[in-house]
Amino acid sequence: MNQDMSRTWIVNAALPVHYQVRVVDGLLDPNNRTLLEAGATQRSGTIRRLVVIDALVDRLYGVQLRHYFQHHGVKYQILALPISETDKTMESVFSVVKAINEFGIARRHEPIIAIGGGVLMDIVGLAASLYRRSTPYVRVPTTLIGLVDAGVGAKTGVNHSSHKNRLGTYFPAKDTLLDRSFLRTLDTRHIVNGLAEILKIALIKDRTLFELLERYGTTLIEERFQGRTPESDQAAKQVIDRAITGMLEELELNLWEHKLERVVDYGHTFSPTVEMLALPELLHGEAVNIDMALTTVISAQRGLINLEERDRIFSLMRKLDLPVYHRLCEPTVLEEALADTVRHRDGLQRLPLAIGIGAACFVNDVQPSELREAISTLRELDSDSQLTLEAAHA
Amino acid sequence: MNQDMSRTWIVNAALPVHYQVRVVDGLLDPNNRTLLEAGATQRSGTIRRLVVIDALVDRLYGVQLRHYFQHHGVKYQILALPISETDKTMESVFSVVKAINEFGIARRHEPIIAIGGGVLMDIVGLAASLYRRSTPYVRVPTTLIGLVDAGVGAKTGVNHSSHKNRLGTYFPAKDTLLDRSFLRTLDTRHIVNGLAEILKIALIKDRTLFELLERYGTTLIEERFQGRTPESDQAAKQVIDRAITGMLEELELNLWEHKLERVVDYGHTFSPTVEMLALPELLHGEAVNIDMALTTVISAQRGLINLEERDRIFSLMRKLDLPVYHRLCEPTVLEEALADTVRHRDGLQRLPLAIGIGAACFVNDVQPSELREAISTLRELDSDSQLTLEAAHA
Repeated sequence: MNQDMSRTWIVNAALPVHYQVRVVDGLLDPNNRTLLEAGATQRSGTIRRLVVIDALVDRLYGVQLRHYFQHHGVKYQILALPISETDKTMESVFSVVKAINEFGIARRHEPIIAIGGGVLMDIVGLAASLYRRSTPYVRVPTTLIGLVDAGVGAKTGVNHSSHKNRLGTYFPAKDTLLDRSFLRTLDTRHIVNGLAEILKIALIKDRTLFELLERYGTTLIEERFQGRTPESDQAAKQVIDRAITGMLEELELNLWEHKLERVVDYGHTFSPTVEMLALPELLHGEAVNIDMALTTVISAQRGLINLEERDRIFSLMRKLDLPVYHRLCEPTVLEEALADTVRHRDGLQRLPLAIGIGAACFVNDVQPSELREAISTLRELDSDSQLTLEAAHA
Repeated sequence: MNQDMSRTWIVNAALPVHYQVRVVDGLLDPNNRTLLEAGATQRSGTIRRLVVIDALVDRLYGVQLRHYFQHHGVKYQILALPISETDKTMESVFSVVKAINEFGIARRHEPIIAIGGGVLMDIVGLAASLYRRSTPYVRVPTTLIGLVDAGVGAKTGVNHSSHKNRLGTYFPAKDTLLDRSFLRTLDTRHIVNGLAEILKIALIKDRTLFELLERYGTTLIEERFQGRTPESDQAAKQVIDRAITGMLEELELNLWEHKLERVVDYGHTFSPTVEMLALPELLHGEAVNIDMALTTVISAQRGLINLEERDRIFSLMRKLDLPVYHRLCEPTVLEEALADTVRHRDGLQRLPLAIGIGAACFVNDVQPSELREAISTLRELDSDSQLTLEAAHA
């Protein structure tokens, strides 16, 4: 080693990440050991678990959950957090951290269990990833958006200084357990909220999924994905399965977003700003759908989608009762939204646009004039739909 | 795909991590383009940089730094933060986040530059890792502990609810630039602080480094590693080089600490608790040295080190003016410290102990009685040293 030369050390390493997402029926049935064993390396002695649960879910399933743990002799602590998009803050992360400190969790073999919707899982995921620089956790999504989107990916995050998901990490749960039966207690608006992310996958890469939504969407909402007939049960399973498969196909090869052209960013270009400005008015999926409606119009303007396909998409959105417009869809707001997304996408728009139904491309040249034209068309389409709705209700 | 089977998706991915640590002389010399280009993918147009700098370092080098950027036509913003261990909080991280928001950084090609000591780099590293789930940064350590320890590893972190580094991530800077000349303005106590982490590497794996410290330690402190003679210059380079090489050898194979037996954890078993309880009295390296003194005694009790070696280690610690004892070294405090470290090390002590000088092993069976005996011996050795010091000063 020549000490007079200037010295450079190069460090090369690779972090292997493995996680699983599983469909599990009867998760809280005492005969089912899945929740007990998920995400844990086997150890002897008493099982200890810290559970962070949405306060509303705790009211509905708390008795069953406590019974489950008591039945198995688990030493557990339950933190029930009131959760909405406005609670998606570092303060909520600190509440989880406080509970972990008090519970005195061992670093690697006592996974935290998160039970709730997408917001709760993003918060617990961030707390787990920061705590001692990483503590394993398990996700049990209880909402549709949790089941098909927030619960299956790798991202954690909270909103910060009026910016959507401004702080976060890539830190997937070791195990995610999907039990569709939780959806039976979910309100219609939150079912529809999840359908927006399913529709996203359909629009950018899965025409069959789009057709399933056209055919079964209304039934799935009515039945809350519980499958009251063999046919609708099959449809519920298929829709969830295709949405997750589509999502994970895209994520697996790009888990840390080294590639910033992401089709799953469809509907997430203008919506982060609109969602934050409208808080708490719009749910995440609603804001995403407004973005998708807007970009569908842009696609049509560019001839990437013909008018028939555009109207077919709008017709499905209406059928699913998803909003296609919001008063914040003003040129100044959407231009600033695009500018912030350009910073997020490292200097380029990288805007995913649908090509027909079931495919996508990326563009970098959307102009303010084009955006204004799209907004104006969107308003017309929205007032058409309002008229249709009024006619239907008349 | 059989829709009736219960479904499992497995996601496998690997995050490649590459970073470099470089010795660079004359970093703020306008003729040196290193700081300009570090960590950035080449882009056309104006260079923009956000710099987060220790307020004290800014007072000493701020004029030079601004001149450097102005000379190169860089559009820059400088955030000067007052930094000490008590500022190592999420609040400081939020200050950095606010500055990034205001600067409107592009996500991937405008690295944040952190200039300061270990604490500052841990804060900026955490902010960078959380901001939009990762934003590149560059480290310019200006303290000895930054140069050989905090600046070259992968960890970021802040203290939280009285726990040392309770929240953090693994997120190394893409580039770390080591310019020893910053040490010329560092006070003696902070030079000694860095020597503790160098001594750690010496004790667990590098006997030659230990001998270099015996021979040149006093000179290095006096000359602040600036090498006033060819011989001491060579020694300064060698000591820094060997400390970094030793550290990176250990880190590279275990960057995310999947293996919890880490020799570089030597001195970091009892010290996190002692350091936090004593805040702001002890610097990090001082707390680490007290821990190393204690575990040296434990090693001696177990016959892993003979008494001659033990005294040689204590003699070097005294020569470097490192504390070997603190009034918080009480059985109850140290037992609780060990218990928290056991949680951190997933249920086992995994305590690194020196074997002789320059090697280490791990033990899991330190008993309270053994700890009490070690504390009592440590007190004797400390009062011997106080007597020696008084005699020397008399």
